[in-house]
Amino acid sequence: MPISSTYIIGVDIGGTNLVVGAMPADGSREIGVHTLPTLAKLGADGVIDRICAMIETTIATTIRETGATRAQFAGVGIGSPGPLDREKGLVIITPNLGWTNFPLRDRVSDQVGLAASLDNDANCATLAEWWLGAAKGGRNVVGFTLGTGIGGGLILDGKLYHGASDVAGEIGHMTIDSTGRRCGCGNYGCLEAYASGPAIAERAREALAGGEPSLLNELCGGDLTKLTAAIVYRASKDGDALASEVVRETARFLGTGVANMLNVFNPDVVVLAGGVAQAGDSLFVPLRAEVKKRAFKPAVDACRIVPGALGGSAGMVGAVAAFLAEHPVA
Amino acid sequence: MPISSTYIIGVDIGGTNLVVGAMPADGSREIGVHTLPTLAKLGADGVIDRICAMIETTIATTIRETGATRAQFAGVGIGSPGPLDREKGLVIITPNLGWTNFPLRDRVSDQVGLAASLDNDANCATLAEWWLGAAKGGRNVVGFTLGTGIGGGLILDGKLYHGASDVAGEIGHMTIDSTGRRCGCGNYGCLEAYASGPAIAERAREALAGGEPSLLNELCGGDLTKLTAAIVYRASKDGDALASEVVRETARFLGTGVANMLNVFNPDVVVLAGGVAQAGDSLFVPLRAEVKKRAFKPAVDACRIVPGALGGSAGMVGAVAAFLAEHPVA
Repeated sequence: MPISSTYIIGVDIGGTNLVVGAMPADGSREIGVHTLPTLAKLGADGVIDRICAMIETTIATTIRETGATRAQFAGVGIGSPGPLDREKGLVIITPNLGWTNFPLRDRVSDQVGLAASLDNDANCATLAEWWLGAAKGGRNVVGFTLGTGIGGGLILDGKLYHGASDVAGEIGHMTIDSTGRRCGCGNYGCLEAYASGPAIAERAREALAGGEPSLLNELCGGDLTKLTAAIVYRASKDGDALASEVVRETARFLGTGVANMLNVFNPDVVVLAGGVAQAGDSLFVPLRAEVKKRAFKPAVDACRIVPGALGGSAGMVGAVAAFLAEHPVA
Repeated sequence: MPISSTYIIGVDIGGTNLVVGAMPADGSREIGVHTLPTLAKLGADGVIDRICAMIETTIATTIRETGATRAQFAGVGIGSPGPLDREKGLVIITPNLGWTNFPLRDRVSDQVGLAASLDNDANCATLAEWWLGAAKGGRNVVGFTLGTGIGGGLILDGKLYHGASDVAGEIGHMTIDSTGRRCGCGNYGCLEAYASGPAIAERAREALAGGEPSLLNELCGGDLTKLTAAIVYRASKDGDALASEVVRETARFLGTGVANMLNVFNPDVVVLAGGVAQAGDSLFVPLRAEVKKRAFKPAVDACRIVPGALGGSAGMVGAVAAFLAEHPVA
């Protein structure tokens, strides 16, 4: 138990859950990781109290497990849905949490008495996969985070890229069908409108409307409002023809989005994180084929397309990495 | 006439024309700029001879006009259609010129006895607009070059971005309609298939097929195969309803592509260079409106969308800038 190590706390703020944990600066382990419901209805002050209590729990666990002292904690990295103002540490707006121009970074920093950093949740997940996960060794990396929405992060020439006003990487809101499906953002034909979790479930419901028999009916107990992307992936693995077609369509939509990133950005790694990482070859094989059809050969040849490796702790790990990028420690 | 200045030659290789000129390292003026047909039919050796003769002409003109000596020429920047291998100085393939794995950089360098650099033509045009043109002062810049095809370049965090294998910036081959028009690249629904010069002319021909009266018929002398994007822009300026609709559609397609770049890269400047720069407000007003409809507000607020300012010499100027980026001079 080296008492000279420096520890950083990572905080991943989601619309549904908060994940908090600690890591030594070398990323060698995760300590005191725990998850609690966000309870956005508590309001910003209530959520801040929950986050700070979780940070104290993680610090206590880390001290107990490693023999560290409180002085060995360098700070707190926070990953949050955006858009953000990183320099000022503000959350500009998060529909799911109901925050507007909220000074998240400084509120947490003041309450726990530690330095803090703030970055976008999808940027953090991408950074985590690059630091310790499936995108390790890449120099130009595109991360897709697939869940309720589709987010993204860009590592450029070995550095997280934020753009002119910290909103770079909104890959889910790239138009792939300019006259296509309405997206929650107000635009038409965004990738997210086809390949987010809810969009996959919606397309499955549409496919079922013709009355074709499918395992999906029983897997959601006859209540199609309970259909999820995870259920669609499971039915596809069990050989259900209708679910398999929905998965293959998903692969084509995602493949179009990935191909766009290859042609524009020419990355060496594309990492797809989130629930989709569990879909396996039934998704990734047709997805890679779609990319090969649509993108330039030198871009295809230069790039590996991989599922995320870090699962649910990616956001927390990436928040630690983002803190370290802003506050290098010895 | 300061005899201590350093001069760089810029060479812009197009499928149709070669443009060669010289500039002092501070970019303060263009000297000895001249244009000749490429004559690709001469074969690679023939074109190299033409380029080197043009370089010698430019050197002679520069010496005559400035009193410089040959020792004051630091080298030659070359912009070429891609894909390229910059490190090796190779043109991997150019359908228009018929070159494959051609050592363009070293062939020119050896023949004129000067250092040389090689970069993509659209990268050069973007770099030029950033150095001396409409994108000056930007830190994150996306350049669209609109002509026979649609190319692009990315300046990210103040540096030209090349990607993992030098093919970054193929913005024209971003899919905006995944089941849409076949593109020359083999993919479907690429931006280039809607908004390149030939695609604009083709959409105008399709619109004319209904027999609606239009100035376009007389402007191309009754021969619709002679219709060009420039003619469509002119008829639109003259108030032709059919041509105006084609221009507005073009604005919507281009606006979709620009909005994608705003959501993904969050640039502070998007510069549209090439013939389209002359289209003026009839194109740029609806284009900016389309971007505003489709992109995130913080990305829209952070970005100005402007026509290129350098006209036909952008490629040559950018080739000089690319040389300077690789070979800084005192």
